[in-house]
Amino acid sequence: MTYCVGLRLNSGLVFMSDTRTNAGVDNFSTTKKMFTWNVPGERTITLMTAGNLATTQALISLLEERSKTVSERNPTILEQPTMFQVARLVGATLKEVIQNSATGGQTGSSKFTASVIVGGQIAGGNPTLFLIYPEGNFIEVTDDTPFFQIGEAKYGKPILVRAYEPDMSFEDAIKLLVVSFDSTIKANLSVGLPLDLQVYETDSFAVSDQPRIETDDAYYQSISQGWGDALRTALMHLPSYKRS
Amino acid sequence: MTYCVGLRLNSGLVFMSDTRTNAGVDNFSTTKKMFTWNVPGERTITLMTAGNLATTQALISLLEERSKTVSERNPTILEQPTMFQVARLVGATLKEVIQNSATGGQTGSSKFTASVIVGGQIAGGNPTLFLIYPEGNFIEVTDDTPFFQIGEAKYGKPILVRAYEPDMSFEDAIKLLVVSFDSTIKANLSVGLPLDLQVYETDSFAVSDQPRIETDDAYYQSISQGWGDALRTALMHLPSYKRS
Repeated sequence: MTYCVGLRLNSGLVFMSDTRTNAGVDNFSTTKKMFTWNVPGERTITLMTAGNLATTQALISLLEERSKTVSERNPTILEQPTMFQVARLVGATLKEVIQNSATGGQTGSSKFTASVIVGGQIAGGNPTLFLIYPEGNFIEVTDDTPFFQIGEAKYGKPILVRAYEPDMSFEDAIKLLVVSFDSTIKANLSVGLPLDLQVYETDSFAVSDQPRIETDDAYYQSISQGWGDALRTALMHLPSYKRS
Repeated sequence: MTYCVGLRLNSGLVFMSDTRTNAGVDNFSTTKKMFTWNVPGERTITLMTAGNLATTQALISLLEERSKTVSERNPTILEQPTMFQVARLVGATLKEVIQNSATGGQTGSSKFTASVIVGGQIAGGNPTLFLIYPEGNFIEVTDDTPFFQIGEAKYGKPILVRAYEPDMSFEDAIKLLVVSFDSTIKANLSVGLPLDLQVYETDSFAVSDQPRIETDDAYYQSISQGWGDALRTALMHLPSYKRS
């Protein structure tokens, strides 16, 4: 599996994705699942993928028009006038890739499915996020549901539900995401370090930084250890159950 | 779905189960999923079920020999010499029920599946827990894996992984389970209050108490609220990410 989260904050967007891919437990590797297109001053688009690796790689290749010679490439994702149109393009491309794989005779098509989170800002519009389904349709974040998860979303959801606030700083949002990812990594072998991180500041139309949090990252280790200790302390301070 | 957890502690066993059953989101109800057989001074057996309700109810009815007239009933679960034999009996019965349903022509038999946690103590043996699969086979707790979850296990797993200790008191273990259940209930509609609770003290061969934690239970509310506050406080005190 995979675990990716996109958060919308008042000050911008934060994306985090893991890098583990696997076909069974005896065949796993590290693969980047986060892709960014940037036209300085005009648009920044970030996309994260979960699901069948052949499907998601084909999706990205088609979005980058790798079916054409290098000189003829002019990715249409850079020509869409709005983020809504970007989501439509990604959805249509994803659906096409899955259908092409599925017509080979497989009856259960679920093996080729993938989901995508795409977000960013195009000049004239606000920063936003979309969750795109394998069928090509999609939903957009709202004030009530200001984040999306794809992949192994369950382990890391409780802390997001409880601690997310739209007016968080980027630094606090990254801390929250690290906790959510660490909870998942501790409980599920199919999600693993390193983690890719992308922060987009509203109206910057620029990619600030895209650091990779490696296995031995001191910050990650301090959060992982500190969070475990903090949970045990928090639990200790709650009132004990009184048996009748 | 469902969420049930069985914990083995140094001092005994703790069982907790939710009570929500549903067939789609527009048809849900409250059903007890925890069943106890007790022969004072000789054996105490507790069983929890997750999965198709027709399957799990048939399992319990067969274990209680409701196919016979009342005077002829002599549940064999009360005659098994060891907990291992109890697990074999439950596994064989579960497999039989699922196979009986599946032979009606359904090609995907997954709809009739169920899983079971059964635990307890029979005089001469130690308290133990088994997780029984729909195929009738089963695994037993070990010192390395001293608890089992069935149903919607993912949301509530991270806190169990981090805070469980075999030498916990019953009161602290119940507190831990309430937190694990509350994390699940906050994130998934198919798990719901009230919760059933059973504590078994080693060598007591008696059912101490089996309270039901209702929706408006003051203790549950204090843990749910207190845990949310504690998580936010704990997160606040962790070091923030430093962006380069």
